[in-house]
Amino acid sequence: MVTIETLIFLESRIMTSVKTLLGGSVAVGSTVEVKGWVRTRRDSKAGISFVAVHDGSCFDPIQAVVPNTLNNYETDVMRATTGASVVIRGELVASQGQGQSVEIQASEVELVGEVIDAETYPIAKKRHSFEYLRGVAHLRPRTNSIGAVTRVRTVLQNSIHNFFVNDGFQWINTPIITASDCEGAGELFRVSTLDMANLPRTDKGDVNFSEDFFGKESFLTVSGQLNAEAYALAMSKVYTFGPTFRAENSHTTRHLAEFWMVEPEIAFADLNDDANLAEGMLRYAVKEVLNKCEDDLGFFNKMVDKTLIERLTNVSETPFARIPYTDAIDILLKSGKKFEFPVQWGIDLQSEHERWLCEEYVKGPVVITDYPKDIKAFYMRLNDDGKTVAAMDVLAPGIGEIIGGAQREERLDVLDARMAESGLSGQLEWYRDLRKYGTVPHAGFGLGFDRFLNYVTGMENIRDVIPFPRVPNQADF
Amino acid sequence: MVTIETLIFLESRIMTSVKTLLGGSVAVGSTVEVKGWVRTRRDSKAGISFVAVHDGSCFDPIQAVVPNTLNNYETDVMRATTGASVVIRGELVASQGQGQSVEIQASEVELVGEVIDAETYPIAKKRHSFEYLRGVAHLRPRTNSIGAVTRVRTVLQNSIHNFFVNDGFQWINTPIITASDCEGAGELFRVSTLDMANLPRTDKGDVNFSEDFFGKESFLTVSGQLNAEAYALAMSKVYTFGPTFRAENSHTTRHLAEFWMVEPEIAFADLNDDANLAEGMLRYAVKEVLNKCEDDLGFFNKMVDKTLIERLTNVSETPFARIPYTDAIDILLKSGKKFEFPVQWGIDLQSEHERWLCEEYVKGPVVITDYPKDIKAFYMRLNDDGKTVAAMDVLAPGIGEIIGGAQREERLDVLDARMAESGLSGQLEWYRDLRKYGTVPHAGFGLGFDRFLNYVTGMENIRDVIPFPRVPNQADF
Repeated sequence: MVTIETLIFLESRIMTSVKTLLGGSVAVGSTVEVKGWVRTRRDSKAGISFVAVHDGSCFDPIQAVVPNTLNNYETDVMRATTGASVVIRGELVASQGQGQSVEIQASEVELVGEVIDAETYPIAKKRHSFEYLRGVAHLRPRTNSIGAVTRVRTVLQNSIHNFFVNDGFQWINTPIITASDCEGAGELFRVSTLDMANLPRTDKGDVNFSEDFFGKESFLTVSGQLNAEAYALAMSKVYTFGPTFRAENSHTTRHLAEFWMVEPEIAFADLNDDANLAEGMLRYAVKEVLNKCEDDLGFFNKMVDKTLIERLTNVSETPFARIPYTDAIDILLKSGKKFEFPVQWGIDLQSEHERWLCEEYVKGPVVITDYPKDIKAFYMRLNDDGKTVAAMDVLAPGIGEIIGGAQREERLDVLDARMAESGLSGQLEWYRDLRKYGTVPHAGFGLGFDRFLNYVTGMENIRDVIPFPRVPNQADF
Repeated sequence: MVTIETLIFLESRIMTSVKTLLGGSVAVGSTVEVKGWVRTRRDSKAGISFVAVHDGSCFDPIQAVVPNTLNNYETDVMRATTGASVVIRGELVASQGQGQSVEIQASEVELVGEVIDAETYPIAKKRHSFEYLRGVAHLRPRTNSIGAVTRVRTVLQNSIHNFFVNDGFQWINTPIITASDCEGAGELFRVSTLDMANLPRTDKGDVNFSEDFFGKESFLTVSGQLNAEAYALAMSKVYTFGPTFRAENSHTTRHLAEFWMVEPEIAFADLNDDANLAEGMLRYAVKEVLNKCEDDLGFFNKMVDKTLIERLTNVSETPFARIPYTDAIDILLKSGKKFEFPVQWGIDLQSEHERWLCEEYVKGPVVITDYPKDIKAFYMRLNDDGKTVAAMDVLAPGIGEIIGGAQREERLDVLDARMAESGLSGQLEWYRDLRKYGTVPHAGFGLGFDRFLNYVTGMENIRDVIPFPRVPNQADF
């Protein structure tokens, strides 16, 4: 895939990555150089040190065999503790021990940066709890698990981008700061430059937001959907991929105040097309991770969730079940299962219902469609029954709702009626314009990217799959 | 590049894109269907209408030849004004007129959504000023110019992602909300959920931010660099690509309050490696756009900047000049040119100096390196002369500074001294940790993505290359 000569320089001039060295493309017998950090060092009685060097390029470190005959063995090699940075040169040789197929017979070791006071190094070689690691979020990518999360995150994100771009979608950077709270989706973060010690006031004594930076009260976005719709009605196929915010005081393993969301929007499309797109994207992205992150997934499969690879393989190969909400209610009522929240037509499905449906009933991902209109947003398309809307949720075993989407209401008169019911009359004139000028059936969905990454890695807490999590009382680093 | 069967459905089931139809892969004589919006309609006296249909997939619309013998010619085709949405079916035939090689001989026209009150349609067929179009940002992607910007923006973004990911970089989503103003880079937007009508107070009467959502005063990020450094010192090669914010009251063609920034960070790298990376990335991305956006660039070259393609080709093919700041000052002093801001060693280069250097002296992109330490940030690596730091700016003709970067100060004692000079002692303990635990030489830079897109399209105003620009007094849509 590397197509320009200038790209080569990093690999050749700065370093040969551990991934390249372990990948089999460098001939045994070559003189090589590796730059990275010591994962472990073991000193044998025979006067040889075994130094495992890690550079983040793949899951495994490469082992360097360092003889005590090196000039700086006592002064430098003996100070190369876990976390120290080193440059090691030598010959790539077939490995004598178990594990990797090759190792480096070191002829030169340069200690670049030692670990000051190695006894107190916050992530010294031992197991740490994920909770502890959150307190050293700046150092935790040096651990096996967070390093693996980082690589899978990159592959998953890039796969989603390429899925869309290669299919002709346009990536739209919808705004982060917005003066309209369109959806009323939970509580909002206000964005302001007003001097809080000396707030400007109107004649009535209210805070005078006309003096604020944007001339009116402004917030962090909860969704790029409405903006994406404007672009879909010009470019046909678009998506957003950016940060999104909820000022909810949630202290769960599934909620972040700041998270990344993927929101495609397609024109001339109905709910069925939308479900096909969601399924196609999820299956493609999972397949890409299975193909490209074998080592990292192997680690998660061993240490975090022993059914992970089997589950992901299933998702990538099996068509998703699709069940209308009304049928799902019937199925739940006839299940014989006693739920904490009673089941009846009209309720919003609770987590226990969603999980039973995908984990017990379908035993795989399922798309629930056509929800009661009263529990869904004003912009979702009213079905002919007058009671339900063309909405969908994609539920996945082990995690529940992973995608929410809908066909949008493209009929101006119906939209106006729904907006009136929702107390939104007179607002969002620009959004109404999209129905006045060449309206078309269109649909889209939102994928919480971090939650999807939880699903793909088997990691339990969403705070461990985003580099620097933002939650109530936590915006450090 | 499409590698999973489920991906095909969009093209085959929803629509055949205009790009595909005009691209030559569909045989003349095929029955085709196109879905899109009417760009223009011309009715001939001979009883034939020529309808140009656009769907955003490429610059050109496809022409449909519609005979007045169709049943719904009077009722529907005659109402298909500019902006109306249509589905047209018919035979793909060789074009009789000039322009496109193929057109559709229509046998069926479906009017999906008309334009209500066509006389007042905000972007009716005529030329509009860019300033006017900013007022209808939800409709402007339907125009030639903003549609072209949208496609180039997608290709440019995706090229940058793939440049990094294919070379083994990890994409790090650094936080948007942060409790630390590390750089003091301009004014900040505060993020808060406090009730401004009823602010909590400390005993001293100050606003009590410990009751705010994050437990302390928090802001929108001005850069992900410091966070990216933490990841580079574990993963070796990382980058960020996300929104960034400046609460500056700037009303220029080059400033946005919310813009997208690309920030790579590489370990075991010096300033020279950093400049190579910047040059490699810029040249790769420009080459990709030249290859993939021929039609859109052709439009910009014709309508906006007649030297555009020549200039971009030059950038993609010619190595960048590199000049140390001290030499650049000499060159400016000897230029004989009279500048508004006097030139002397120690000044921050002004726009007029930068532009003269790249436009008049080098006549191409130039990297200026090793600036005086007093005009640069504390984290930039002090050179051996004790006066300059290993900083760089990449300047491009017509736009000035497009990239700013530096080798980072990796020596703890020097960093501490620089932080003390900057009044930052005792702060950023986590950032100091990176120098205590396995520090390595490392470097990185920041690219203002929207400004780069200005450069690549020739568009004059940065407000016209981002979908919904945020500037003082403007956060609508």
